[in-house]
Amino acid sequence: MAFSAIMDSNSYTGDGGLDPATDAMVEKRRATLGPSYRLFYNRPVHLVRGVGAHLFDADGTEYLDAYNNVASVGHCNPRVIEAVTTQMSELNTHTRYLHGNILDYSERLLATFPDEISSIMFTCTGSEANDLAVRVAEKYSGGTGVIVTEEAYHGNSALISAMSPSLGTGVPLGPNVRAVPAPDSYRIDPAGLGRWFAGRVATAIDDLERHGHKFSALLLDSIFSSDGIYVDPTVLGPAVEVVHRAGGVFIADEVQPGFARSGESMWGFQRHGVVPDLVTMGKPMGNGIPVAAMAARPEILDVFARETPYFNTFGGNPVSMAAARAVLDIIVQDRLAEHAQVVGDELRAEVRALAAHHSFLGDVRGSGLYTGIEIVTDPETKAHDGAMAQRIVDAMRDSHVLISVCGGYGNILKVRPPLVFSTKDLDWFMSVFTSVLKELS
Amino acid sequence: MAFSAIMDSNSYTGDGGLDPATDAMVEKRRATLGPSYRLFYNRPVHLVRGVGAHLFDADGTEYLDAYNNVASVGHCNPRVIEAVTTQMSELNTHTRYLHGNILDYSERLLATFPDEISSIMFTCTGSEANDLAVRVAEKYSGGTGVIVTEEAYHGNSALISAMSPSLGTGVPLGPNVRAVPAPDSYRIDPAGLGRWFAGRVATAIDDLERHGHKFSALLLDSIFSSDGIYVDPTVLGPAVEVVHRAGGVFIADEVQPGFARSGESMWGFQRHGVVPDLVTMGKPMGNGIPVAAMAARPEILDVFARETPYFNTFGGNPVSMAAARAVLDIIVQDRLAEHAQVVGDELRAEVRALAAHHSFLGDVRGSGLYTGIEIVTDPETKAHDGAMAQRIVDAMRDSHVLISVCGGYGNILKVRPPLVFSTKDLDWFMSVFTSVLKELS
Repeated sequence: MAFSAIMDSNSYTGDGGLDPATDAMVEKRRATLGPSYRLFYNRPVHLVRGVGAHLFDADGTEYLDAYNNVASVGHCNPRVIEAVTTQMSELNTHTRYLHGNILDYSERLLATFPDEISSIMFTCTGSEANDLAVRVAEKYSGGTGVIVTEEAYHGNSALISAMSPSLGTGVPLGPNVRAVPAPDSYRIDPAGLGRWFAGRVATAIDDLERHGHKFSALLLDSIFSSDGIYVDPTVLGPAVEVVHRAGGVFIADEVQPGFARSGESMWGFQRHGVVPDLVTMGKPMGNGIPVAAMAARPEILDVFARETPYFNTFGGNPVSMAAARAVLDIIVQDRLAEHAQVVGDELRAEVRALAAHHSFLGDVRGSGLYTGIEIVTDPETKAHDGAMAQRIVDAMRDSHVLISVCGGYGNILKVRPPLVFSTKDLDWFMSVFTSVLKELS
Repeated sequence: MAFSAIMDSNSYTGDGGLDPATDAMVEKRRATLGPSYRLFYNRPVHLVRGVGAHLFDADGTEYLDAYNNVASVGHCNPRVIEAVTTQMSELNTHTRYLHGNILDYSERLLATFPDEISSIMFTCTGSEANDLAVRVAEKYSGGTGVIVTEEAYHGNSALISAMSPSLGTGVPLGPNVRAVPAPDSYRIDPAGLGRWFAGRVATAIDDLERHGHKFSALLLDSIFSSDGIYVDPTVLGPAVEVVHRAGGVFIADEVQPGFARSGESMWGFQRHGVVPDLVTMGKPMGNGIPVAAMAARPEILDVFARETPYFNTFGGNPVSMAAARAVLDIIVQDRLAEHAQVVGDELRAEVRALAAHHSFLGDVRGSGLYTGIEIVTDPETKAHDGAMAQRIVDAMRDSHVLISVCGGYGNILKVRPPLVFSTKDLDWFMSVFTSVLKELS
């Protein structure tokens, strides 16, 4: 079961017993937005207000947001609003005029990367950043073969959709794309996991070349978000070595793990002790203002950048840069990485303690404020239980705590709150989670 | 000479005699952003403030903006700032929760289209909208063959770059792409222009099919912005007939001509009396807040939308929708289409009056506040004079009036100010333009 199936099972099916006002909104959406648009939960939520990690629906009911990573420094963060409003009142143009914001922010942002990564280009979305990165890798490598993981999601452009197997069978993978299994640390012996994963990458490179597709890039989300959240930090090193020996490029998709999400470092790849060739980022970068980027080793970017004019009308504009600068400042000044590590470790410890009482709770894993909880029919067989996971997600929503699922079987609870999620929020989460598990046991 | 060449000739070459502070910014850009980034003008401009159609540089010098179409309702429009600030202070999430803004805006926006076009999907950039539209056309038509014009620019994604010949030879066109000449009303007999253009489209369809690429779509900017601004309203009708007879889809790229730019109507295609199958829009939609969209006949969108999950994290979010709604309200309430028509017609009349005194002023054409002025070596031979056009653009910039060039030879002055450009602004423009022409004669 891939993304499309998960999205269907995790979306409104028309039997949620909605009130007439909500039902009217759902109908109006169907009529104007078309069936590509999906809603979360069997009973969709109509949110109107947010603050920190808390959301409020149209009736004033308060929800705990344990899912959204875009509003990473908190919903309606006043420092971001102030930065955006101030810059909007001064000027908002584009990168064909000089402006200080893009230079200041680039300098601050690049300082968070290893020295080797010293060039940057701005886009509006993570999809655009990945689309650009794959094109840059093609120019550098002279190949088009790309390797991703089996349930990867990297974006919605034509190029990147064909490298996003989790979109389901309605979106064919390109003939130049190979999908390798994610490093499932729950089911594969952790001792040999790095070598195992590198072996799969090597086999995929051979298969690409055998079919006439010169190898270009390994494109990975360094926390394997849509595959199921795998955090073993020994995995990437051997694979990146294989990639470089084959003349390819390693693209770290940090759209999800980046910006302190993993707690231990600003970027997910840093936990693995590797230096990527290209790094893409987005989602939390502007706390909701559309801004994304691709950082690069300059020698990798060089061929593309010399031959290809690239202009992104809104990319790197003064307002986007003001929002992004405010977010980065807040992450650093409020020590949100350390905070994410402390609260995330505590969350996983408390969930693990519950596992003794519920046989369907399997592996509990994560890093910082990114946690995956496997729901299985039995911890011995480790068989995926997507139906039970979905029941938990909907029961949590009915108790006003928002989470979702991930993984090819839809059986892994995804707990990924804003980074400002407090220990008080954790108590709220655990109290509801404990009741829901008891109720469904 | 294509886009890349124009961009190079129209960008800083290092001999502009910059002051040390500006020079330092240019150097810092080079070091961090890489050579894909280009700057306007031989002496780049460092802008820090804007209001209406006026911009101010770091030294406080005032510029007249006769170029920027993004800040369409005026730089720093207070009503847009208010709408964005208010919504940012309440909530900014995404389309997997219900929210009123996307529904309200969709209803208002779709009301500006012919009845046949009643579905909409939101993205962040015009590139994303075109990328999506081409995918939708492929699913509907079962083909991949796409026809564009010879100097078209439709966006920066991998798919759309390969359909944007103006990017230059560094970006190859796809084997499934054919480029037809734009309907150059200055050099081709206007009486037969529509039939002539339809004939080129028919020939391109035959050539695609002959090479095994089933025809999918004709993708056109309905004002032919980067080809040279061609506004004859009889051109699209016959071509669209040919497209439909061949089972293809007509995609109107309204990123530039849309939102009242052409003066005569909200959308450029309406001037031609045709109804597209898909319509893409972007740039001015949020006055600088990244928001874009694809509107569709629902029967064309249907196959794609049923089979393909499409999620755009920032697309259609409450803040983008608030910005877009404010812009649409301002366009309608302030009657900016009528305003653009009156001021644009006056601008072209005054420029035409100058042509008697300057033999290098060729055709003056346009619609609303989108004007192209051909610079030629002689109005009899109509030979393109890109070098002279560039001298005019740089001289205008040195006199603090911002314009640029377009067309395959870079010889067409592009005058495309914010829609709030007033008759007083027009007087300023004409006074500087008159002096510059005299000086360069």
